[in-house]
Amino acid sequence: MRFDVLTLFPELINSHIDFSIMKRASEAGIIEVVTHNPRDYTLDKHKKVDDTPYGGGAGMVLMPQPYVDAYNSVAKSENSITLMMTPQGEPFCDDISNELAKYEQIVILCGHYEGFDERIREIIKPREISIGDFVLTGGELPALCIIDSVSRKIEGTLGKIESAHDDSFSDGLLEYPQYTKPREYMGYKVPEVLLNGNHKLIEGYRMEQKIIRTKRKRPDLWEKYKSKNNRD
Amino acid sequence: MRFDVLTLFPELINSHIDFSIMKRASEAGIIEVVTHNPRDYTLDKHKKVDDTPYGGGAGMVLMPQPYVDAYNSVAKSENSITLMMTPQGEPFCDDISNELAKYEQIVILCGHYEGFDERIREIIKPREISIGDFVLTGGELPALCIIDSVSRKIEGTLGKIESAHDDSFSDGLLEYPQYTKPREYMGYKVPEVLLNGNHKLIEGYRMEQKIIRTKRKRPDLWEKYKSKNNRD
Repeated sequence: MRFDVLTLFPELINSHIDFSIMKRASEAGIIEVVTHNPRDYTLDKHKKVDDTPYGGGAGMVLMPQPYVDAYNSVAKSENSITLMMTPQGEPFCDDISNELAKYEQIVILCGHYEGFDERIREIIKPREISIGDFVLTGGELPALCIIDSVSRKIEGTLGKIESAHDDSFSDGLLEYPQYTKPREYMGYKVPEVLLNGNHKLIEGYRMEQKIIRTKRKRPDLWEKYKSKNNRD
Repeated sequence: MRFDVLTLFPELINSHIDFSIMKRASEAGIIEVVTHNPRDYTLDKHKKVDDTPYGGGAGMVLMPQPYVDAYNSVAKSENSITLMMTPQGEPFCDDISNELAKYEQIVILCGHYEGFDERIREIIKPREISIGDFVLTGGELPALCIIDSVSRKIEGTLGKIESAHDDSFSDGLLEYPQYTKPREYMGYKVPEVLLNGNHKLIEGYRMEQKIIRTKRKRPDLWEKYKSKNNRD
């Protein structure tokens, strides 16, 4: 899987990859993350990439030319998708992550400041993705969330002892509570059922806990799960 | 505003702050981001911070002692809140960001691997926050999203020319389309209304666009907006 990230702040992407689990996947050749800076493509003599908005308002807007030219310079494989990180996009979720993991290449457009000139959307026609209903300084953290989440789905990224299978959302429910050593800490004990080695009981306890938690913490997910699995 | 981040990978936090808008806010003394590594607090002779889960299953679980001791070592101000980044938490949104911006100090617990021993939750009783229904390798990217989003709400973080006021979600709607120079690019023109200097018309056009977009892209937000503002 190759990720091509268009960003005015490539250090934000590269420094994160260098320190994370993605470095291992990158060294193993499982993923590749390449950054492209639209500033290198501007035809403006002062190397400008943004300007004030028409119609007035605070902030600077990213000009179309540097982004469109930088985008066109990226070699696209046949099985490629282009994403734009924007609070206006579809809310990112585990299902979208599974879907994205099937591509060979993901091109990601990161904005900054007040956002993209609308014509960048019109010309490139990216799939617009949001990681949540909040505003950030730029698309770099959201892009890193996409890269991390999608990379975890690709075989070989996670080590042998890790697993994406038991993660929250993999079956539409929140994860069961986890316990490790010691058996007792500050008076808090590990539930007896986890210590008796009866795998059928353990499985039952964990499923019950997943349901209790999802009902209590995320009734919206519980409703979805019920209608998908026809239970109540 | 002071952020104390408990993480096994402090470089992921520090390297991002160094390259972002938060560096300026940090140098100006508006925000301060301090990392604490639970690994420095483990009493295990091999410096272990995690172990296999009781009851079986893939992955490693974070042991309670290093996290609880690291947490207790953080000096808390009177107006302080503790967050845990976890897919099981409340979905983070702009309203929560506004709420968090009122604190003097935010302590953030970042997990990694298969997650926290449940007793860390029981003992520290953090407010659990999720940035979305997807799974990441660790809580560091979500913590950075919180720090970025909350910092933007604090006076002085954004420069004079920037503004959080017109952002998506600030009034519950998605942002209007933005345009900057040139007036025409590859045959795509800036809408005439933005060029005529009539601020009343511009305001009307922008509000209309916000409503059109929100209805089309995020009917859920539109429903919320309607019921809050009693319009249809």
